[in-house]
Amino acid sequence: MNTATTPNPALLQQLKDILPEEAILTAKEDLHPYECDGLTAYRHLPLAVVLPTTTEQVQLILKTCSRLKVPVVARGAGTGLSGGALPHEGGIVLSLARFKQILEIDTANLHARVQPGVRNLAISQAVDHLGLFYAPDPSSQIACSIGGNVAENSGGVHCLKYGLTVHNILEIQLVTIDGELMTIGNDRQDTPGYDLLALLTGSEGMLGVVVEVLVRLTVKPDTVQVLMADFAAVNDAGDAVAAIISKGIIPAGLEMMDNPAIRAAEDFIHAGYPIDANAILLCELDGTEDEVSEQVARVSAILKNHRAGTIHIAKTAAERARLWAGRKAAFPAVGRISPDYYCMDGTIPRKHLAHVLNKINDYSQQYGLGVANVFHAGDGNLHPLILYDANRTGELEKAERFGADILELCVKVGGSITGEHGVGHEKLDSMCVQFGEAELEVFHAVKRAFDPDELLNPGKAVPTLHRCAELGAMHVHHGQLSHPELPRF
Amino acid sequence: MNTATTPNPALLQQLKDILPEEAILTAKEDLHPYECDGLTAYRHLPLAVVLPTTTEQVQLILKTCSRLKVPVVARGAGTGLSGGALPHEGGIVLSLARFKQILEIDTANLHARVQPGVRNLAISQAVDHLGLFYAPDPSSQIACSIGGNVAENSGGVHCLKYGLTVHNILEIQLVTIDGELMTIGNDRQDTPGYDLLALLTGSEGMLGVVVEVLVRLTVKPDTVQVLMADFAAVNDAGDAVAAIISKGIIPAGLEMMDNPAIRAAEDFIHAGYPIDANAILLCELDGTEDEVSEQVARVSAILKNHRAGTIHIAKTAAERARLWAGRKAAFPAVGRISPDYYCMDGTIPRKHLAHVLNKINDYSQQYGLGVANVFHAGDGNLHPLILYDANRTGELEKAERFGADILELCVKVGGSITGEHGVGHEKLDSMCVQFGEAELEVFHAVKRAFDPDELLNPGKAVPTLHRCAELGAMHVHHGQLSHPELPRF
Repeated sequence: MNTATTPNPALLQQLKDILPEEAILTAKEDLHPYECDGLTAYRHLPLAVVLPTTTEQVQLILKTCSRLKVPVVARGAGTGLSGGALPHEGGIVLSLARFKQILEIDTANLHARVQPGVRNLAISQAVDHLGLFYAPDPSSQIACSIGGNVAENSGGVHCLKYGLTVHNILEIQLVTIDGELMTIGNDRQDTPGYDLLALLTGSEGMLGVVVEVLVRLTVKPDTVQVLMADFAAVNDAGDAVAAIISKGIIPAGLEMMDNPAIRAAEDFIHAGYPIDANAILLCELDGTEDEVSEQVARVSAILKNHRAGTIHIAKTAAERARLWAGRKAAFPAVGRISPDYYCMDGTIPRKHLAHVLNKINDYSQQYGLGVANVFHAGDGNLHPLILYDANRTGELEKAERFGADILELCVKVGGSITGEHGVGHEKLDSMCVQFGEAELEVFHAVKRAFDPDELLNPGKAVPTLHRCAELGAMHVHHGQLSHPELPRF
Repeated sequence: MNTATTPNPALLQQLKDILPEEAILTAKEDLHPYECDGLTAYRHLPLAVVLPTTTEQVQLILKTCSRLKVPVVARGAGTGLSGGALPHEGGIVLSLARFKQILEIDTANLHARVQPGVRNLAISQAVDHLGLFYAPDPSSQIACSIGGNVAENSGGVHCLKYGLTVHNILEIQLVTIDGELMTIGNDRQDTPGYDLLALLTGSEGMLGVVVEVLVRLTVKPDTVQVLMADFAAVNDAGDAVAAIISKGIIPAGLEMMDNPAIRAAEDFIHAGYPIDANAILLCELDGTEDEVSEQVARVSAILKNHRAGTIHIAKTAAERARLWAGRKAAFPAVGRISPDYYCMDGTIPRKHLAHVLNKINDYSQQYGLGVANVFHAGDGNLHPLILYDANRTGELEKAERFGADILELCVKVGGSITGEHGVGHEKLDSMCVQFGEAELEVFHAVKRAFDPDELLNPGKAVPTLHRCAELGAMHVHHGQLSHPELPRF
């Protein structure tokens, strides 16, 4: 699958009428950088990559593709982790990389109008001097673009308190596959008609192409404090998380790491993590000075009640940064101790944390593959990193099966197969575990409402019923798992 | 339109196979209580009203209606203000009034599983002893049901801080027009596939019938404080609202009333409002004790900077309740000074508050009808109450035209035609002002994806393109008003 199909001559000619020659890539060496996104296990070369700079060009490109029935995969920064931007071999990649202007910053209304190719972190940097920031902060925020964030409904460490992308955008300009430009949403809370803004956010490029985003800006808190607690028992750490949330305390971040993740991160970053702990919790609290000091006291008491060992409160901004640096570098840290790793992304109800960790350890024994666990614990979003060596025959396949087992376990305990990385190409089969026929049929009907010829990112996010049927009867229907081999948890 | 059409005999027979006889109403006197919702200006008798008690019955009823092509209007408590539950003369009303069980309260996960007929306030009452509440609080919360809240995406005084219904529900059980039961959403923040939970919330009964709701519970704040400030100039009050929000302070409620509304409420409730003020602001702040006292100081300073006269801080819980009682009774209070009133519901950007109020006063002169204004000022949601006398020939029509002018003005300044009451039957024409052809076509396509025969609440919420065309070229396309007679604001 590494050879580009010869582009449709009519398509190329019509693209040349829309775009300058340098904005159309067709040479194989130019296409290679676009063959995959952050999930590098899957690669395809597209027919061509186009790099428009105006909304009108995007409209004309989509009109052309619609007329010629050519698939289109929109692409932001290509940092996605589920293959959502994997090219279609018979289609084009529509890169939004040149849409990188911040068009307006409105401090009175606390919003900014930006083009989709603007990097996530660039928004916060542009408004930093105004005491503001853009809240969603995926780990890839240095590189990932706001258009990609909308497509994936990205979260990050701070989404526990500040919400996902959908809670932090107000309006988008969308181009449909017919080339129509639409304004979806407005700068108020509610909007007449169906809530298309929420429907489109997280729709993985399947329903339209976003060419402008009105994002909500948040006022920076006066005070920030970070606590680290270590635990001898993973169960206790999990219970502490549930207890904090059930007291109505919403930390700005609440992260958990298990021993292999702690060791890997500490060895790499020297963050000051206790390498003998079986789990640590990192808890960030923000707000006014009084509010934060009160919350620090309440959280500390809860941690102690749940048998935390040492509770360490960062004394300086530098120390806070170092504690987070360990967590944020956990993925590359694990990359140092294993030739390859496979990053999973699932969610579970917080109360099942300990049980799920124990099961993951069982699977680890069973497959003979190591695993390091990193969580957005506050919202039950699990990132097990499965360690393997792609050069050993069969290990990739074992890692994939191990990963699928973890996702199935997430569904079984009442969670879901993706927390923030999307379905993309990677998790199509897992969607058959998550949803029944009726739900999948509605997804397909919604897709057809926007894109009847299925030209936008075809084959992603929602599996065909046929594909699910081939996998076997692994359906969760009305929240009940009906796979015959799996006992109901 | 006050006579019931003879019911389809096949329909009645099949309903009798599903429901006990007492759960099927067909006698004219039994149908009358269902002829309208809170918007009493429009009334129709349905063929029949059905009152199921189980999900299976709802599934069978919808399957039957689907097969016989009979329209179905689902109904909660009937408190809606836009005619969303107005019956269809050729169809049945599906009342969810008997679905009134609270099925589960889960304090660890801060959620409750309830049936759709449960009253909004009943949820907060059921969890009050646990220190919890359900945040959305429409004025009708004593009577309105959670199913209706989902259909309308209801807000309330506290939605500024705590969000609308969509931000406070986690999962719904939905029956489609085919009788399929689906689980939409989960108890995590993100969900794989398209965000159908948000799409369905506020969809006004057009896409499916909700038979169960998992609502989020919120921990009650330690401390609550209410400020009242009076202003000689409405502009100053409007600017103060914008200033509070732009400082990143999110009050639990921020309400504004103009002089006619103040006088009517004071005369009725004796809340202690200053009857000579041209505007008052009511501002509720909640949180921990330290946080609230700090916010009270900051808000007071902002109010003074914007030429507030007296800033009064309620000293007791009883006084806080009295200040709110005046606001909450503003509608019936206005009902005491005018034989009839027409409650409008639009949103505007906060910065245009003063301009819009001035224009509303101009219209008031022009139509010769009084108006009292009540706002959810913090989120720019406007409730002008147009005063008229239905017994005077032509006054109802004048009030309706006045109302339509106000909504058009809202769109013109960048707002929208509904803040929280929905489109229903009332605002179909205004939807033609708000949206262009491309947007309306997408709405219709989404409707067809769920309900291809258009049997669920037909004729509501989204106007046909034909209807809009008949109204003339009053389109806002891409946020630009293209009505030739209206200068761009």
